Order: sequence, then structure tokens, then C-alpha cells
Amino acid sequence: MYYIGVDLGGTNIAAGIVSEDGELLLKKSIPTLKEREYQDIMKDMANLCMSLINEFCISIEEVKSIGVGSPGMPDTINGILVYANNLKFTNTPIRTEIQKYIDLPVYLENDANCAALGECTSGAAKGTKNSVVITLGTGVGGGVIIDGRIYSGSFFGGGELGHHVIRVDGERCTCGRNGCWEAYASATALIRDTRVAVAKNPDSGINDIINGDIKLVTAKTPFDAAQKGDSVAKEVIDNYIRHVSEGIANIVNIFQPEAVVIGGGVCYQGDEILNPIKAHVNNMVFGGNLKTKLMIATLGNDAGIIGAAMLGKRG
Amino acid sequence: MYYIGVDLGGTNIAAGIVSEDGELLLKKSIPTLKEREYQDIMKDMANLCMSLINEFCISIEEVKSIGVGSPGMPDTINGILVYANNLKFTNTPIRTEIQKYIDLPVYLENDANCAALGECTSGAAKGTKNSVVITLGTGVGGGVIIDGRIYSGSFFGGGELGHHVIRVDGERCTCGRNGCWEAYASATALIRDTRVAVAKNPDSGINDIINGDIKLVTAKTPFDAAQKGDSVAKEVIDNYIRHVSEGIANIVNIFQPEAVVIGGGVCYQGDEILNPIKAHVNNMVFGGNLKTKLMIATLGNDAGIIGAAMLGKRG
Repeated sequence: MYYIGVDLGGTNIAAGIVSEDGELLLKKSIPTLKEREYQDIMKDMANLCMSLINEFCISIEEVKSIGVGSPGMPDTINGILVYANNLKFTNTPIRTEIQKYIDLPVYLENDANCAALGECTSGAAKGTKNSVVITLGTGVGGGVIIDGRIYSGSFFGGGELGHHVIRVDGERCTCGRNGCWEAYASATALIRDTRVAVAKNPDSGINDIINGDIKLVTAKTPFDAAQKGDSVAKEVIDNYIRHVSEGIANIVNIFQPEAVVIGGGVCYQGDEILNPIKAHVNNMVFGGNLKTKLMIATLGNDAGIIGAAMLGKRG
Repeated sequence: MYYIGVDLGGTNIAAGIVSEDGELLLKKSIPTLKEREYQDIMKDMANLCMSLINEFCISIEEVKSIGVGSPGMPDTINGILVYANNLKFTNTPIRTEIQKYIDLPVYLENDANCAALGECTSGAAKGTKNSVVITLGTGVGGGVIIDGRIYSGSFFGGGELGHHVIRVDGERCTCGRNGCWEAYASATALIRDTRVAVAKNPDSGINDIINGDIKLVTAKTPFDAAQKGDSVAKEVIDNYIRHVSEGIANIVNIFQPEAVVIGGGVCYQGDEILNPIKAHVNNMVFGGNLKTKLMIATLGNDAGIIGAAMLGKRG
């Protein structure tokens, strides 16, 4: 049997055919064109699934289910997307809309949770039962896998790991609280801190990279400058890594999972970022004996498709 | 069928007979005399269980299992207490020792986890599937119940909720990190802050209660002084409650459980402490809609016995 996974994004809808053991066999994507009526988007999504089935030369009877990962907060029991800000969806009946066109079971989950399930099925944490996947991106997302299944709390909104405060009265967070981990560990936070540092230290090598235009700072900028030996950039990165590590150590003490998988753009730095995080967390963890493996995500954007597909396997 | 639960403490061993539905029917306790060889302690524990069976006039065939809650870190799979500082046990084979005397299945768990299971079976959070129980005592303990079962991580040491940092570079914690929740939310922290406040404000009404002897400050002192209108004590309590709330809001954002149950000595303050915590957490929680119920523990010390007994029911 095969499984179809769909990653419903604000820009594109990506979908794929996934094998029993979590291998992505065929992938296609179409633009979301999110300003449309949801009925039109869902119809295109169903057509995308059918085109995968046809192109892969299998019958619909060989597909066990369709899983959809969406932003926002899905009601996973009823297959309804309660809300998703960047899609302007409210109480959208994803399951019943897709089933108008395809007679298959349809599962719905939050996209970060799907990505976590994907990494635990086929990626960095393959084979683990209890693992936590965090994504250091525009925000800090998280997905918690317990006993091989997504844990999303009692009201579909748990696993908001980015919104645990690590510094009471600290930096303002987008969620309204002060001092959330996201306000220190996101790429957005790293960009903010880099800008502040370069404004204070105009002689820094960072300015060479951005040609003096602070708007050009990206999350990669301080790493590039540090590699050239710039001490201001090094300090920014050290501070960033320490705050990332404080949050990971908290997750380890709370969940003591087999693995914490780190995803998001910052991870392209690989061991440059992973090794100092490991050293920090090892010093911070309760009992002084870090048994949890820390690792970099391996599936990239495919994690969401694979995890969505695997929703059907878990039932 | 009946279940026996044992709460192995540094001072006393308390045990009880518990019904199918988690009601404590008979309770007895003996001194631990912890300086003895573990074999002697285990023999006494087995005798205590037998005396419960005899006194309750049931046969051993009517007892399904014995569950033991112990401090420290148990290997729950093999029934071995890996270590427990305040008992000086190392790799103590609790299960096989008890089974020398009683032919019943024996389960072992951390005592804070047992207390959490007890509160979720028969106490404040009765009937919930996902709940978190925290204990604000000398330290801050925690027990996480997911899908009706204790979640203790992949290596028997998860659920260390007191050791998640809420203030990077903050107060020193007993675990070696700085800024752990425990360093702000424990009774120990409240006593420390009360002492600091009274030293700074010798005219405070706190000094009347302790007769000027700072050693006499307990966790109850600031509440007593505040009730008499002392503003210094009120400030200490407000600050304490806010830090307790920051940690609870973190737990809600991470787990989004049905309930967070608050236990420990500080809870004797009842609504005096619960209402302001609710108000704070309501303002702090992600999405601004607090669905998790916050409540005070109801079982006191019986929670540990009941939870230990229920280990056998979950299998």
C-alpha cells in the first residue's frame, strides 16, 4: 500500500506518494493561489493527488489514505482547519472537501507536527519512539513525537515549544509575552541581534558583507562574517547559540527524548552550530548525563510531505 | 481485585490498599530507618504489604499487583532503583527483593510520577487523559500524564519540570544551572526572597511574625504577613506568584494538557494563590485562550500511594 502526503503552504501545495516505510517516491507541487475560495484550493489539491496516482501508475485502491499538513490549528479529529492566519481559512472542512473528489480516508495535522513525524519516520531520528523536532526559522516551531505518534495536547494546540519563556521580562515576542525562546532562537532574532551589533560596531566585518546596508542582513550574514574572523559576529553567534542551547536543555529536561532534531535555515551551518550546542546542552542538562542525541534535520521540506502521509499509517 | 501502593520515603514507608477505581481503602505506615541494609528495608516493606492484606481480610489472590513509588531514578522496566540520594540506594533490585516474600507483580516508579498518576486517577484531575502535576515544595517536582499513563522520557529521567530555565543567568539552582523555575517557584525560593526582603526592610510586619529571627521564616510567613496588610510581604508574594505563573504558562504552551494540578505546601493558601496564578497564566498563554484547567491538588500524601497502586492497573 501507498500513502499520499500533502504539505499545504501559503505559496505552494506540495504532495507526494510515500511507501509503507516512509520513503518519498514521487513528488509534485502546484501554486496555492491562496486568495481564492477554499473550495477551489481543495479541488486543486484533490486533482494534485489524483495526478500523482496516475503518474505513478497505481490504482486508488492501492492508496491507503491522504494526509494533509497545514499551517495553523487543525481539528485533527474532525478534519477541519480551525484557523490558519496566512491562508485566511476559518473552520475549513478539509476532509469533506477532498472526499468530494477522492474516496479515501483523509487525515489533517499541523504542518510542524507533520515535519516532526517525517523526521522521526524517515529522517534524522528514524526509528525513535520519543523525539522532539524544532525548527529555527522566522519563528521557532516544534513538534513532539511520543510513542511514535504526534503529541499535540488536549486541544490541538500543544507543542508550542518556541513560546516557552527562557528569560522573564526579556525580549518582546510576537505572541505578546516577553522572553520567549523564539525571541532569542529564531532566525529573526539572530538577524535583529546582528543588526544591533553592527550598529554599535560600524567597523565590524559584517558591514563589508552587507555593503553598509543593514537591511541586507540575513541569518547567514553573521556566520559568513565570523568565518572571516570578525569578532563582533562571533559574539553575536556565541550569544545566539547559548540561547538556542538553553531552550534545548529545557526540552531535554522536560521530555528526555531519544533525540532532539534541529531544523530550519540556520542548520545549513551543520557542525559549526551543532557542536557548540551539544557542548552547552551537555553542561546544562539535569543530572549531567546527556543521553538524548542532538542532531540536524535531514529531510528539508520533504519532512512535511512524508509526515503528512504517515498520518494514515498511524491511523 | 485490589491494588497495593507503596510510597517509599526517606522517613516513612506508607502503603495502602486501593480499589479498581482508585479509592484508598486502608493505609498503614512504618519508619524507613534508612541507614539499614536495603534487604532489611525491603523485607519490612513486604511485611507491611502482607499486614495490609491480612488486616483487610482479603487473600493474596485478590491483589493484582504491588506498585512502589520511590525517590530518585528507577529503572521502571527492570524494577531496579538506579539511584536515590536520600536513601543511599544504588541499583537496588526492589522488584526481586519484594518478590522473595510475596508472589505478585511488582511495579516501580518515581514518587513524583506516582503522585501525578494518583491526582489524575482519583484527585483533582480525575478522569483527564493528559495532565501535568507540579509540586511546589523544597524543590519543584513534576509528573506528566499522557494518555492516562506516566510519561517519564526515554531514559527514566524526563519530567524534570522544575529544571527548565525561565530566567537565563538568573538565580543559582541546586542542579548547577542558573535560572531554573525551581530557583523561583519552590518554597525554598520563597523563603530566600522573604529573608532578603525583610533584611532590606526591617520595619516590615514580617519581622513581627518571626520575632526578628530570620531563621524562623517559613513559606507561610509572607502569606501571614500579607494577610495583615504588610506591603513588603505582598510584594514578595506577587513576585513569587508571577514566577510560578511563568513556569505554568510554559507548561501549558508545551503540553496544552487538560489540567495543571498544583501541589505542595504552598497550596494550603488555596484560592489566595490559585486565583492570581490563573489571572497571570490566562494573560500569558499562547493564543490567549486558556483551555487548560488550573487546580489545587486534593489528595495530599495519599496521591503517591494511590498512584503507585495504579501502576499495576495500567500494566
